[in-house]
Amino acid sequence: MTAPQNPSESTHDRTDRTIDEDADSDPASEFEVDPDSTSDADPAPVDHAELSELARRRGLYFPAATAHGGAAGFYTYGPVGAALKRNVEAAWRDRFVVREGNHEVESPTVVPEPVFAASGHLDSFDDLLVACPACDRRHRADHLVEDHTHASDAEGMDPVQVEDLVATHDLACPDCSASLAGQPVEPFALMFETAIGPGDARPGYLRPETAQGTLVEFPRLAEYAREETPFGVAQVGRGYRNEISPRRAIVRLRELTMAELQTFHDPERDDAPMATVADATLRLYPVERQRRAEREAPDDPVDPDYVEATVHEALDEDVVADPWLAYYLGVAREWLEAVGVAPHRLRCREHRPDELAHYAEECWDVEAEVDGEWIELAGVADRADNDLAKHAAASDESYTLFREYDEPRTGERVRVDPDMSALGPEYGDRAPAVVEALEALARENPAAFDADTVTVAIPVESEDRSTTDAEGDRPRTDPDGDHPTVDAESDRVTVSTDHVDVSVETVTEYGEQVRPHVAEPAFGIDRVVYAVLAHSLRADVVDGERRTYLALDPAVAPTLAAVLPLTDDVADRARTLAEECRRADLPVEYDDGGSIGRRYRRQDEVGTPYCVTLDERTREDDTATVRDRDTTEQVRVPVADLPAVLRDLRDRRLTVADLAAERNPDERT
Amino acid sequence: MTAPQNPSESTHDRTDRTIDEDADSDPASEFEVDPDSTSDADPAPVDHAELSELARRRGLYFPAATAHGGAAGFYTYGPVGAALKRNVEAAWRDRFVVREGNHEVESPTVVPEPVFAASGHLDSFDDLLVACPACDRRHRADHLVEDHTHASDAEGMDPVQVEDLVATHDLACPDCSASLAGQPVEPFALMFETAIGPGDARPGYLRPETAQGTLVEFPRLAEYAREETPFGVAQVGRGYRNEISPRRAIVRLRELTMAELQTFHDPERDDAPMATVADATLRLYPVERQRRAEREAPDDPVDPDYVEATVHEALDEDVVADPWLAYYLGVAREWLEAVGVAPHRLRCREHRPDELAHYAEECWDVEAEVDGEWIELAGVADRADNDLAKHAAASDESYTLFREYDEPRTGERVRVDPDMSALGPEYGDRAPAVVEALEALARENPAAFDADTVTVAIPVESEDRSTTDAEGDRPRTDPDGDHPTVDAESDRVTVSTDHVDVSVETVTEYGEQVRPHVAEPAFGIDRVVYAVLAHSLRADVVDGERRTYLALDPAVAPTLAAVLPLTDDVADRARTLAEECRRADLPVEYDDGGSIGRRYRRQDEVGTPYCVTLDERTREDDTATVRDRDTTEQVRVPVADLPAVLRDLRDRRLTVADLAAERNPDERT
Repeated sequence: MTAPQNPSESTHDRTDRTIDEDADSDPASEFEVDPDSTSDADPAPVDHAELSELARRRGLYFPAATAHGGAAGFYTYGPVGAALKRNVEAAWRDRFVVREGNHEVESPTVVPEPVFAASGHLDSFDDLLVACPACDRRHRADHLVEDHTHASDAEGMDPVQVEDLVATHDLACPDCSASLAGQPVEPFALMFETAIGPGDARPGYLRPETAQGTLVEFPRLAEYAREETPFGVAQVGRGYRNEISPRRAIVRLRELTMAELQTFHDPERDDAPMATVADATLRLYPVERQRRAEREAPDDPVDPDYVEATVHEALDEDVVADPWLAYYLGVAREWLEAVGVAPHRLRCREHRPDELAHYAEECWDVEAEVDGEWIELAGVADRADNDLAKHAAASDESYTLFREYDEPRTGERVRVDPDMSALGPEYGDRAPAVVEALEALARENPAAFDADTVTVAIPVESEDRSTTDAEGDRPRTDPDGDHPTVDAESDRVTVSTDHVDVSVETVTEYGEQVRPHVAEPAFGIDRVVYAVLAHSLRADVVDGERRTYLALDPAVAPTLAAVLPLTDDVADRARTLAEECRRADLPVEYDDGGSIGRRYRRQDEVGTPYCVTLDERTREDDTATVRDRDTTEQVRVPVADLPAVLRDLRDRRLTVADLAAERNPDERT
Repeated sequence: MTAPQNPSESTHDRTDRTIDEDADSDPASEFEVDPDSTSDADPAPVDHAELSELARRRGLYFPAATAHGGAAGFYTYGPVGAALKRNVEAAWRDRFVVREGNHEVESPTVVPEPVFAASGHLDSFDDLLVACPACDRRHRADHLVEDHTHASDAEGMDPVQVEDLVATHDLACPDCSASLAGQPVEPFALMFETAIGPGDARPGYLRPETAQGTLVEFPRLAEYAREETPFGVAQVGRGYRNEISPRRAIVRLRELTMAELQTFHDPERDDAPMATVADATLRLYPVERQRRAEREAPDDPVDPDYVEATVHEALDEDVVADPWLAYYLGVAREWLEAVGVAPHRLRCREHRPDELAHYAEECWDVEAEVDGEWIELAGVADRADNDLAKHAAASDESYTLFREYDEPRTGERVRVDPDMSALGPEYGDRAPAVVEALEALARENPAAFDADTVTVAIPVESEDRSTTDAEGDRPRTDPDGDHPTVDAESDRVTVSTDHVDVSVETVTEYGEQVRPHVAEPAFGIDRVVYAVLAHSLRADVVDGERRTYLALDPAVAPTLAAVLPLTDDVADRARTLAEECRRADLPVEYDDGGSIGRRYRRQDEVGTPYCVTLDERTREDDTATVRDRDTTEQVRVPVADLPAVLRDLRDRRLTVADLAAERNPDERT
């Protein structure tokens, strides 16, 4: 987990960069103006509210089940949004699973309680809640404190501290303005609970992260990986958090989609495959810079002082401690850019020690700026061996791998063979302690056993020791004093070496059991979708009219191309073409509704990169125009070539400008 | 829903065809025997237990979280199983969404209670449970009755009937053999319950089908489809059923994956696109044949009397009533064959009226035979307008579409304009009833208003009518009797036509609101995966040794090809090749562990269609051998050609035999 909706997301750092500025400065909006256009108006800025409006109008996503009142934090993706989300998931899978040579598994979302008892979530996975005494609404107490005081680390505080800050600053209910001072601040468990099975139903929880479903199966997954590290296991699927205050549409959901990868590695042996991303640049915001900003300019956190470094430098200069974390920060940055998050609106923020999750040693959030706020898209965490150790402690499995030594290790081992038929009756309950002491002496000084007797000290037994001790090695009371070999005062015992054989053996060991560490990049897919939309929304002027469009990459666009017949008599040809493209696995849509201008706008708004228009001339020479969404440039192409052309456009082997350059300028429309 | 784990799955019909017979009779096992093979032993039959053993050993799937005790009905798919499952989902999406031109959405799995109150699931979605008085284990009472008596329809009975049958037949607990006679049989709700939000938490349920998440959003989805039918909306995702007795690994799970499509259509206007599947053959088991079999041979249901018909004939001869159902049965049959379910082990069984779900008018289960039992893989249901009507009744939305008439309809409409300033004071609380009666008279006989007065009858008011009636049209008591126009005995009222204007207008109507019907094919993906595995498992003899292999289609196989270096000095070339294939989106694995024979077996067992072996000669001429899993035939191919060759093999544009035929016979190894 950690990533998608980690409570650590903070709002205390803001920039004043907005979508408007970005859209204006983006080269993609410097389109080739249609010569017929009579307007010379500047492109109007994109209003941020337009994204919400667009999402609703085009069915990207909307609150679920509103006909029956709905419930906060649950959204349904409509056809366009679901397609975008699936494409983002596929791109993630391609980058983090296929290209990395990792595996993907699927575990259930309903998990029996003992798993989360073992992992620590049952105890630790909660947020601080305060209820308004007037309107009874519930709020995140730590968020209220961070938003309205200089404290930026309320999430890591204990409830009493937060309660004190609420009282000291006399914080008010955001809904009804009643004072919250004096109201109790209490931890609220974030896992949804359910009951499994009929009759004596067992408690279960909806998973708050996919990770435990993978980690708990480590012994089976390691077998599949033939016990060799490093290996990575990914999951893409739903996660659930019973958030106190869901907000901002798909940014803070109660049911979300996560894409998580656990890389199991031996920190002493396995190097991260740095080469491919060593030169990727990161904008890092380490803890010490966060603290300095707070100290020096608590009211002006607009322009934090970042460390700009390549992955290689970040590791070299010890800004990022764990090499696997540096590696995945680089991969995350490259991947986010590839799916459409603007790299200059990304940063990596280190977790403060007090905000680290209970299993993490080091964690960096990859955050995107949207509308002046930083939103956590991913968390990249060093979970060390914390989870595997916990599952081992709570089960009969070892959660280790056999690690062969480079060279077998040969050494001497002392073997002690006590004659219990003599020692047992002689020392009774104390016999095991005597044997243990003899073994210790043999390891230290085997030559001592060449003598007729040896004397060993055994631990002094405490008088208040529980009588239920399973070992049974409590000192025996000695009512008749007929055991002269037990020195009651010093607990020293002298034993005849006739009763114990000591031999020295040569032993060869081939390896040892080791517990791998886990490096985890974990993404909140819904938030990535949100950032992609927010960073892709543009406005310009075409034919004298303002248009808004989504500048989505063809790899993630819900529809690659729309096939638009201008007249009824080319409708059949258009339908056949669309059908043919779909059979070739290209997401192509047929659209004959409304004027051509309206159809272009509709496709622009949902980010369709190409429109293919069939017109009168199509009937003569079987060609159609291909229009580029961003530039609105058009070029004629034989209809028969279109499936291949669209595939090349999608795979970025070709642009519409390339196509136009190839053709006679007269052919351009 | 209906499909995946519909309680309707019955075990009363069995065939004695087994996997063994199938494997023996399958042409794919008539492989080209390696000439070096010295054994002439017959291929050994595949034991059904081998599938379970294979699933465990190769990590296809396994019970989840067993380290902490696990919970029945929850399975984790390991890397191989998860890849197969994803490929089956992708194939479903390709056939039922992309090729049909439908849309796909994603709704939450946690759903607030009012949705299931409206849909009827809260009342109706349960199974009959009986608890053992001795061992306290819970059982499906209807299944016990169906398994141990001649009753085949216990699921449709009420609890008392089932309780009587348990008592009459003195049925015993399957676990401890104690008698269950006299034990109460009670409905057990199958939905997992949870609580949403802090504080005054609201009840929510884990969805038992994806359908309601789509159906409840019909108004928004129809807008997206521009209010035109037919249109289809699909979902692929998790569903949850708190089964009383989960069993058979991934066949009856408590958390499962569903793939459902709701096609919204106007039964009076929209024809199913029959042409593409009209000639697909179906093996149908209609209700009357089921009843006849029960009557005539209740103890020998081995060889049911099926109706073998094309989709076209099934509809024509009225075996299947709804054309959309016939269509989807044809599509389902073709798709299941394409992903690897043996068509001769498939049938379509009609639901008896008493087993129909509460929303269904007609339903057919598509069942596959595995190990002599019929397992429901899909349900194809006519849900009519039942769901939309229920959501409309429980909300403020109409769940209808505006359907334009072919021709506008023009007619006369009588308009009544009462003078309330006169009628109000005169009739007081009764005025609205008087106006209503006047309107009714005007519609019937507008000419009556040519006279000076009209007389109308108004409904006699009941004396016990509630005084809180919001309409306020309770008869006024008339203490002073000064309203002579009210005829108290007959409730007849005479009104001056001066107080009411009646005019006749010509009105043109362009359309009406209609509520579409829903045809639904719904698949249980886990069960399809299970049937594909069971029907693909084969055994033969290669090099004198028995081998088992999964004859998976390249389109669904978890790995398309394994790249196997024979010696260390071609390992780098092999790795580069595997990497190159993965970049070309081909699921190719690198494997250098163990002898080549062992590697072939490992890949055969997980259904990898092709092995690419690099050897000494690769260093000389950069060629490698491609081995066909089913025939074990091998052919040399230039390494540089392999990505293209593997793609063609996957898309079935090419076979290894084709490749071999193209080359000089000397080249064959």
